[in-house]
Amino acid sequence: MAVTRRSFIRGIGMAGGAGLAYGAMSSIGMAPAAGAPSATTSGYRPPSAGDLIGDVSGDHSVVILGGGPAGLCAAYEMRKAGYKVTVLEARQRPGGRVWSVRNGTTETDLNGETQTCTFSEGHFYNLGATRIPQTHITLDYCRELGVEIQQFGNQNATTLVNYTGDQPLAHQSVTYRAAKADTYGYISELLTKATNRGALDDVLSRDDKEALTEFLADFGDLSSDGRYLGTSRRGYITEPGAGLDFGGDTRPYRMSDVIQGGLGRNFSFEFGYDQAMLMFTPVGGMDRIYYAFQDKIGTDHIHYGAEVASLKNTGDGVDVTYVQNGRRKKVSADYCICTVPPHLVGRLENNLPADVLTALKAARPSSSGKLGIEYSRRWWEEDERIYGGASNTNRDISQIMFPYDHFGSDRGVVVAYYSSGKSQQAFESLRHRQRLAKALDEGAAIHGSKYKQNISSSFSGSWKRTKYSESAWANWVGASGHGGEATPEYRKLLEPVDRIYFAGDHLSNAIAWQHGAFTSARSVVTSIHERIAAG
Amino acid sequence: MAVTRRSFIRGIGMAGGAGLAYGAMSSIGMAPAAGAPSATTSGYRPPSAGDLIGDVSGDHSVVILGGGPAGLCAAYEMRKAGYKVTVLEARQRPGGRVWSVRNGTTETDLNGETQTCTFSEGHFYNLGATRIPQTHITLDYCRELGVEIQQFGNQNATTLVNYTGDQPLAHQSVTYRAAKADTYGYISELLTKATNRGALDDVLSRDDKEALTEFLADFGDLSSDGRYLGTSRRGYITEPGAGLDFGGDTRPYRMSDVIQGGLGRNFSFEFGYDQAMLMFTPVGGMDRIYYAFQDKIGTDHIHYGAEVASLKNTGDGVDVTYVQNGRRKKVSADYCICTVPPHLVGRLENNLPADVLTALKAARPSSSGKLGIEYSRRWWEEDERIYGGASNTNRDISQIMFPYDHFGSDRGVVVAYYSSGKSQQAFESLRHRQRLAKALDEGAAIHGSKYKQNISSSFSGSWKRTKYSESAWANWVGASGHGGEATPEYRKLLEPVDRIYFAGDHLSNAIAWQHGAFTSARSVVTSIHERIAAG
Repeated sequence: MAVTRRSFIRGIGMAGGAGLAYGAMSSIGMAPAAGAPSATTSGYRPPSAGDLIGDVSGDHSVVILGGGPAGLCAAYEMRKAGYKVTVLEARQRPGGRVWSVRNGTTETDLNGETQTCTFSEGHFYNLGATRIPQTHITLDYCRELGVEIQQFGNQNATTLVNYTGDQPLAHQSVTYRAAKADTYGYISELLTKATNRGALDDVLSRDDKEALTEFLADFGDLSSDGRYLGTSRRGYITEPGAGLDFGGDTRPYRMSDVIQGGLGRNFSFEFGYDQAMLMFTPVGGMDRIYYAFQDKIGTDHIHYGAEVASLKNTGDGVDVTYVQNGRRKKVSADYCICTVPPHLVGRLENNLPADVLTALKAARPSSSGKLGIEYSRRWWEEDERIYGGASNTNRDISQIMFPYDHFGSDRGVVVAYYSSGKSQQAFESLRHRQRLAKALDEGAAIHGSKYKQNISSSFSGSWKRTKYSESAWANWVGASGHGGEATPEYRKLLEPVDRIYFAGDHLSNAIAWQHGAFTSARSVVTSIHERIAAG
Repeated sequence: MAVTRRSFIRGIGMAGGAGLAYGAMSSIGMAPAAGAPSATTSGYRPPSAGDLIGDVSGDHSVVILGGGPAGLCAAYEMRKAGYKVTVLEARQRPGGRVWSVRNGTTETDLNGETQTCTFSEGHFYNLGATRIPQTHITLDYCRELGVEIQQFGNQNATTLVNYTGDQPLAHQSVTYRAAKADTYGYISELLTKATNRGALDDVLSRDDKEALTEFLADFGDLSSDGRYLGTSRRGYITEPGAGLDFGGDTRPYRMSDVIQGGLGRNFSFEFGYDQAMLMFTPVGGMDRIYYAFQDKIGTDHIHYGAEVASLKNTGDGVDVTYVQNGRRKKVSADYCICTVPPHLVGRLENNLPADVLTALKAARPSSSGKLGIEYSRRWWEEDERIYGGASNTNRDISQIMFPYDHFGSDRGVVVAYYSSGKSQQAFESLRHRQRLAKALDEGAAIHGSKYKQNISSSFSGSWKRTKYSESAWANWVGASGHGGEATPEYRKLLEPVDRIYFAGDHLSNAIAWQHGAFTSARSVVTSIHERIAAG
């Protein structure tokens, strides 16, 4: 298939064939505003920053290993630019680690256990990615693909914190509302006191002090003499209502208990650049994005159940073999984009250089997993006024995530744990039945005995024990956090090996985010496009 | 119509006929869990705390003045218990101050100006109530009535603050994300410093200090030596992405500028008991609740376009006259529930005692209003990554509220101001065209010139200038805030005048909230029910 001349070259400073690049790549997601003609059907199509710009001639083929976010994004973008693409995906579904579990989902894990989900129609949970920050290009793809989105409650005043230990307030369930009110109240009181005592006069001017104490009085809801004495922000014992139902005030915890109890240990989660609300998610499951990609790419170009066996540069192209329905097949293409999890690439027959194989191994696999429980009563709404968000704990379950859909209905799926690292390792070798029992015990310690009642069904997954992934996300040796941080191995894999390119969230500064996979895919697609144009 | 024997007396400690009351009234909204049989159709019907319990005999009729939240809630509950109800509503729609403006909405205000809304199909904004806290009984009615709800973004990291004045950072647009990061960073640094200096040793133990500084390091994202040097929480100049696109760091503002600039002056809004997220709203407009009430009550029992003219106790009942289609009509009933705005009751022909009329006047009317603009481009999403929430300012517009629906589509309605008090008074005497011009000037000062482009249409309303309301909510003389606070006048109106009962959010501790109207209505309904039972 010839690379077609793009009808929507926008004339943004291109110097002939060498000017090939993504439109407005420098401001990813900030799509060019107006004037970009609709390329497709009569329906709305926003201008896209993901369109390859420029003109190359000749047939060019690409084989893409993996039908997750990076693979499908790459296939979609290259198809738009007229490339011939073949996606090989070992699973029978698109999305990779984006996996929405619903009725009929069946999986045999690497522990050898098979689970089949029996949730009610319309109910699901996302075993992998479940939320999207506003700044991520993921939302641009939702817009471009027509995937409907809704708000995702990342934090909720009515959910609970409950931490084990021997500190004050240990094992007590406290609403986020109350934990915040007391914490902010006491830190405001303390800083007001220190300021008024002149303890900070070397760094605060008189005007600073006046403005600061004014802010703190409001921030902490302090009394006129600068003390925190409790606040309606904590909530009420009985709800204020009509007439003389003023609501029953709650009493604040003692300052020392609040501080030493560590009630605020999780507050900063919601300030994080990629976690601050408002957060979003597709209506009906995160996998909607990948079914939309699949529909745009065309199922002709995606081979499901295709387990890659070998990967070899041939000098003028790439040969890939795979096993599908028990038969070994071969694809040859001009280029390959490999989105296979980095620590699994070495298992393929390959002719990659030793230093590349070493670099791939530096992306260490990690543990994470979830367990979803369908309840036939929304006790969290009816009894606890919790409509979404998560309760937090230092138990192995780490958090309990309440559904963001089907509000007010008669059933719903609660994510009874979403844990990673050591906490997840406590679950991953267990049978599902054992995981559920542990999750219920820990959840009941926070939300009470109702946590064990009205359970319809459940389903769990652990990414380390999930075939074709065997990891939740990559931890680069020598790096910390979810950023690439440019370790030597990371840098190494940013370069192609002859005609093989690596892509995935592990090669981005947004590891474990779809945005990382998409930007990586776009970067590789651009590199190939530029290489061809350069001749 | 006879009061039917309730089939679902739940045996919660009733002493004969005198035990009539709402089930579980003491825990409003916390509906009794299980065992309450479905009273209606085959569809799901959650157990209701709003069912009158007990048994009275004979025909009993009630005339209800006003088809807003209090009036329709009262009518719905009394109908459930078998009372004969007649609702008189002056407007041609249910909901009162719950008013969703959409295509075809026409209103002539008390300035004499007629506006007709020409928003695109499916687009609207709520000129009155627009959000529901999780704790409010409003959500229970949504469940009971089958009104679908969705999250409402009350606060958003990507929206802006921009304050006028001569303080530092005045007239600058700063994201909430950055404003919070800097404010929390500097107060954490300051309190850490004061703590380490021993300035608070009289109130903090060594363990307190250790736990506090650990919390502050995380809360403020401080350096290892306890300083705030900026943080990724502020956001990036360029978005982090693939490979070596680490994202362009932003620099924090100076401490003194952040403090004196008052960037945090609105942070406490989101800690408020009735504003803390997660917040909710019905899909398709707040008025969906009142159309649902209407459908349950039956339109036979609601007279629209019925302007009440007189209201009189007759000794054994109440006579009400009203004007409909130019004709004066009369309703007689055993009881009356009057939900007419308190400051307007005195305009009716009435035989209310002088002290009651005086008490009604103590509920002073207030100013509030909104203006909605439909844009044909969602510039807030495409250019600024704002998907809902509000920008805040001390200009008269007070805030700009971004739509919580139609994400990613080609148009949307922005609430260009939601102001009250003096800020609203700056708008209420203006013609719509002038309001729009002022709103655009003030909005453009925050969001730039794009704020004035791609405008399709607009519609504004000011509650002081809206017929039949003439107020946004009541301010009780001698009280502050939105609680009843039991002033003598407030207490006076909690008692019936013979057979006339007053209801509305003004007679609750949740003034300006639907919850206040509902709890007031339920309280009055219970009083009437108990009075009849007592014989």
